[in-house]
Amino acid sequence: MGVMRISHINIRVLDMEASVKHYVNVIGMKVVHTDTAGNVYLKCWDEWDKYSVILTEADIAGVINLGYKVESNADLDEFKRRITQYGVVVEDIAEGGLPFVGRVLKFNIPSGHEMYLYADKEYVGTEVGAVNPEPWPDGLQGAGVHWLDHALLMSEFDLGNGVNKVEENTRFMIDVLDFYLVEQILVGPEGNEQLATWLSVSNTPHDIAFVGGPINGLHHLAFYMDSWDDVLKAADVMGKNKVKIDVTPQRHGVTRGYTIYFFDPSGNRNETFGGLGYLAQRDRPVTTWTEDQIGSGIFYHTGVLNETFTTVYT
Amino acid sequence: MGVMRISHINIRVLDMEASVKHYVNVIGMKVVHTDTAGNVYLKCWDEWDKYSVILTEADIAGVINLGYKVESNADLDEFKRRITQYGVVVEDIAEGGLPFVGRVLKFNIPSGHEMYLYADKEYVGTEVGAVNPEPWPDGLQGAGVHWLDHALLMSEFDLGNGVNKVEENTRFMIDVLDFYLVEQILVGPEGNEQLATWLSVSNTPHDIAFVGGPINGLHHLAFYMDSWDDVLKAADVMGKNKVKIDVTPQRHGVTRGYTIYFFDPSGNRNETFGGLGYLAQRDRPVTTWTEDQIGSGIFYHTGVLNETFTTVYT
Amino acid sequence: MGVMRISHINIRVLDMEASVKHYVNVIGMKVVHTDTAGNVYLKCWDEWDKYSVILTEADIAGVINLGYKVESNADLDEFKRRITQYGVVVEDIAEGGLPFVGRVLKFNIPSGHEMYLYADKEYVGTEVGAVNPEPWPDGLQGAGVHWLDHALLMSEFDLGNGVNKVEENTRFMIDVLDFYLVEQILVGPEGNEQLATWLSVSNTPHDIAFVGGPINGLHHLAFYMDSWDDVLKAADVMGKNKVKIDVTPQRHGVTRGYTIYFFDPSGNRNETFGGLGYLAQRDRPVTTWTEDQIGSGIFYHTGVLNETFTTVYT
Amino acid sequence: MGVMRISHINIRVLDMEASVKHYVNVIGMKVVHTDTAGNVYLKCWDEWDKYSVILTEADIAGVINLGYKVESNADLDEFKRRITQYGVVVEDIAEGGLPFVGRVLKFNIPSGHEMYLYADKEYVGTEVGAVNPEPWPDGLQGAGVHWLDHALLMSEFDLGNGVNKVEENTRFMIDVLDFYLVEQILVGPEGNEQLATWLSVSNTPHDIAFVGGPINGLHHLAFYMDSWDDVLKAADVMGKNKVKIDVTPQRHGVTRGYTIYFFDPSGNRNETFGGLGYLAQRDRPVTTWTEDQIGSGIFYHTGVLNETFTTVYT
Repeated sequence: MGVMRISHINIRVLDMEASVKHYVNVIGMKVVHTDTAGNVYLKCWDEWDKYSVILTEADIAGVINLGYKVESNADLDEFKRRITQYGVVVEDIAEGGLPFVGRVLKFNIPSGHEMYLYADKEYVGTEVGAVNPEPWPDGLQGAGVHWLDHALLMSEFDLGNGVNKVEENTRFMIDVLDFYLVEQILVGPEGNEQLATWLSVSNTPHDIAFVGGPINGLHHLAFYMDSWDDVLKAADVMGKNKVKIDVTPQRHGVTRGYTIYFFDPSGNRNETFGGLGYLAQRDRPVTTWTEDQIGSGIFYHTGVLNETFTTVYT
Repeated sequence: MGVMRISHINIRVLDMEASVKHYVNVIGMKVVHTDTAGNVYLKCWDEWDKYSVILTEADIAGVINLGYKVESNADLDEFKRRITQYGVVVEDIAEGGLPFVGRVLKFNIPSGHEMYLYADKEYVGTEVGAVNPEPWPDGLQGAGVHWLDHALLMSEFDLGNGVNKVEENTRFMIDVLDFYLVEQILVGPEGNEQLATWLSVSNTPHDIAFVGGPINGLHHLAFYMDSWDDVLKAADVMGKNKVKIDVTPQRHGVTRGYTIYFFDPSGNRNETFGGLGYLAQRDRPVTTWTEDQIGSGIFYHTGVLNETFTTVYT
Repeated sequence: MGVMRISHINIRVLDMEASVKHYVNVIGMKVVHTDTAGNVYLKCWDEWDKYSVILTEADIAGVINLGYKVESNADLDEFKRRITQYGVVVEDIAEGGLPFVGRVLKFNIPSGHEMYLYADKEYVGTEVGAVNPEPWPDGLQGAGVHWLDHALLMSEFDLGNGVNKVEENTRFMIDVLDFYLVEQILVGPEGNEQLATWLSVSNTPHDIAFVGGPINGLHHLAFYMDSWDDVLKAADVMGKNKVKIDVTPQRHGVTRGYTIYFFDPSGNRNETFGGLGYLAQRDRPVTTWTEDQIGSGIFYHTGVLNETFTTVYT
Repeated sequence: MGVMRISHINIRVLDMEASVKHYVNVIGMKVVHTDTAGNVYLKCWDEWDKYSVILTEADIAGVINLGYKVESNADLDEFKRRITQYGVVVEDIAEGGLPFVGRVLKFNIPSGHEMYLYADKEYVGTEVGAVNPEPWPDGLQGAGVHWLDHALLMSEFDLGNGVNKVEENTRFMIDVLDFYLVEQILVGPEGNEQLATWLSVSNTPHDIAFVGGPINGLHHLAFYMDSWDDVLKAADVMGKNKVKIDVTPQRHGVTRGYTIYFFDPSGNRNETFGGLGYLAQRDRPVTTWTEDQIGSGIFYHTGVLNETFTTVYT
């Protein structure tokens, strides 16, 4: 029983045509549906459910909501009970809350980010199928990412005014949704304030993450790739497509992953994230980064946080 | 609640000195303990529990037992109930069943392989620590593997006589220990006999696997590495150390992983297994390999099962 | 002044359609010309001259001739002088000896293999062009090899009868064509007979190589790829296309290169060769492999020469 | 006959102890000699000559001289003739001009950079030897670079005042020392002024390079590594050692190479350069980058020249 993984993110984009081009040609997803409101649904080749990214045209970029898939509809009953008990309002939508998705629980985590839980989503299969599959399909485009991996949500953080939505979100994810803490950055005079947290509900180093900032918004959405060599290929693809890169290939100290940060045409930060890093487990000791090592924690090679890390978000 | 991962394997070796040399110099483990009976305990750098491999000197090679770690001691009560109810005798050892390990459940899976479950094992930490860790430690030896990843157990398979321990083991792991089926090879006149199965209890493609054969024994124990490049490094190390290689670097169709099969000095087959392959999930469709594609399933590059795959085991 | 590189190889194939499919879909070349006799000319994306492989339909597989490009037509005069002086008959063909090629010197090296030298070949450019080029072109097929890299010619070797065409070829290439010896395998009672030699005329570890065998034929033709990861991709492509693989990814001791040996549909052995290995130089000491280390010299990981290495050729 | 490769660079460092630590622990070289003046000589594991880097303590960082090795002493006679004829003063030092080196020609290229040519240098062998060598030696430290690969010399460039030392150097290297032009950046109102050039005398994309700037100095010295994965390892090593990184792993458009730019403790820019890129040849068309594509030419992923590229040098 429980949450299995991130199943979709719905983001706002300024120019749908340019956005679709980006997520198809650069990221390597495929358009699987466009609804009557003009929202575009995309899927990665190694995902078996109908879609993982929804693009909604809007005047400003950012995240609208994200959804996590649970094992069964019975889990939804239990999560509804827990969320309500935590004092959070939860909407229980029988069907139709999201296209191709069954019953949905809809609620806001402490930072206000809207989250969905659901157990059913139309199964369409990966592009290599389930019988004698090839390791990768022919005709991959762009970076050819495997799947939507995680999101890093910017969460209000203002210690002077006693605001730490990172901590509140973290507690909520652990206490209510059974996530567990994998890594954290601790700051503050006592060195005990969570400036950023990475949480897992599976064995990947992060199924969701939070970082403190001036607003509750989106830091980035991340796609999974196999290896450091795929990161190179992705960066080459970005060079070819003149994508605006924020951080060229580098290793995160946190999660040990290989990263490129870049922006979609609307300014939403994307990440192509390579390598497993390690196998997160509930009994693995939480990794803590101290305030003086934040630079190495985020960007291990330079050991320096680039300015845009904390100032650019949507 | 539940099983988390393989936590140890105890194998028989013919010459302790040569064996320790192999697991230290080639595999890259460290000796952490030698008990009064002369058994040697080893640990990989990225494991946080005390040990994962136990070597026992004996006249013939093979596996003695393997242990899986569960989340809590309360889980042991539940598993004890389930195992017993399944009709399997289970020994409940308060402490001392294994060095550095707490309460142990000890039982045999249908093929007769001896299995342990336990929740507590002495924590010693990874070699990079949990505060501002480096991505890898200096001074790694040999292949420098991350962790013991899985074992493939050979299980009696004789359709003519109605024996299929692969299927029995698989059912036991699923029904009793909450593993789920990730991949399988189906054979037989109806194409519905499990010749081999790969099961997960986490998000790796296999935490345990079974393959049919003439006896109940050990096909191989596998260690995890990050990437195809680490597989090259491992193979170079084997070349340097004149290790007997069974299969040079190649991709498995099953799990998509990168593999080298080779032998320890006693003839126990080892695998250095690289790459995540994919993220196994309970709702991911089971991958099935049909009889005519067994070659590609096991060795995707050649599409041919080498003769030793089925004839050499311990 | 001097020879620059291998510029073409003309091989015999049994079934033109299957062969073209192989060199296009698996190797990743493009057909650039078919002459009136039905010979098919192919080019790799990173080559700037018109073609590098010529396929000629025939009843048995094997090599017909190979050509090396020299810096200028003036070089041909000098080489003609030297070849003649060495006692070898050389044909000087003003033009038309080969399509799209200028003046040609045609002669046989001591083993009888037919060789061409020429300075002019139609320039068509690489697929990325010479102005603001991208690092690789879109739409690569199969292994997407960079260029024809070298050939290993089997040369008669029968010490009992005093025959060593490896040695004779080697001497010819050095004395007449200014190649230099990079690596060698020495065998025989005195340990001074060249069983195999690798020669360069540039800075790659081998522009041509010779290995002793029962006949004067073709051991393999090799294509260059960037890296060990490209070797994986090539092997995956072979798995997808059910190509007959001789040796799965492995490192050569000789040249340190990464290799896959496989066969085209006619049985001509191909190699996809990755990595520079090292920068050969005329003052770099010749690397020598002794008879007891031949296995490691050829296949470093296993240290064992597979049986087909010496028994299968065309 | 001719120049073979860069054989040494003598640079100025501010703090010898910190510098030696850097070139040994981070770059992975070994100290092979310290002369009576306190200059320290270092060698990479895959070089066979005595040394390739000389460190000289001084008050400001920068380059003192660089040396290229020619095939034979007879070549020196010819080069002496040509250099003199070009109107450049050349000093012909019988022996003792440089430790462990034979006869030396010493002169200044048009930008004033001091250059040495010599044919003899004490041979000590690579660390894997020349008989049955392993592909890499055990016990490598830091990035474990293979060899000193090239230098990029900043050369005075002031079109307003009619100064273009890049062009003058380039002409000198081609006309006198038989280098050939591989890549160039062309700028200026007519698009025909060489702002930067990359020249080869072998088959690597650059044995020397020049870039226009305010002074005649050193842009960087570069070390060779095999692959993009070795670039990752090097970057990890820099992260561990808190090395000041200028540009994290990225691909050069020029040469297609993989690069990290970083600084030694004195501020001399280093590069660890991975991958062959392509095989340069005298008949390969010169690659030209136009003024509007300089960003992509230097840093292909971002397409943007970072500010330090042109403003930080020694």
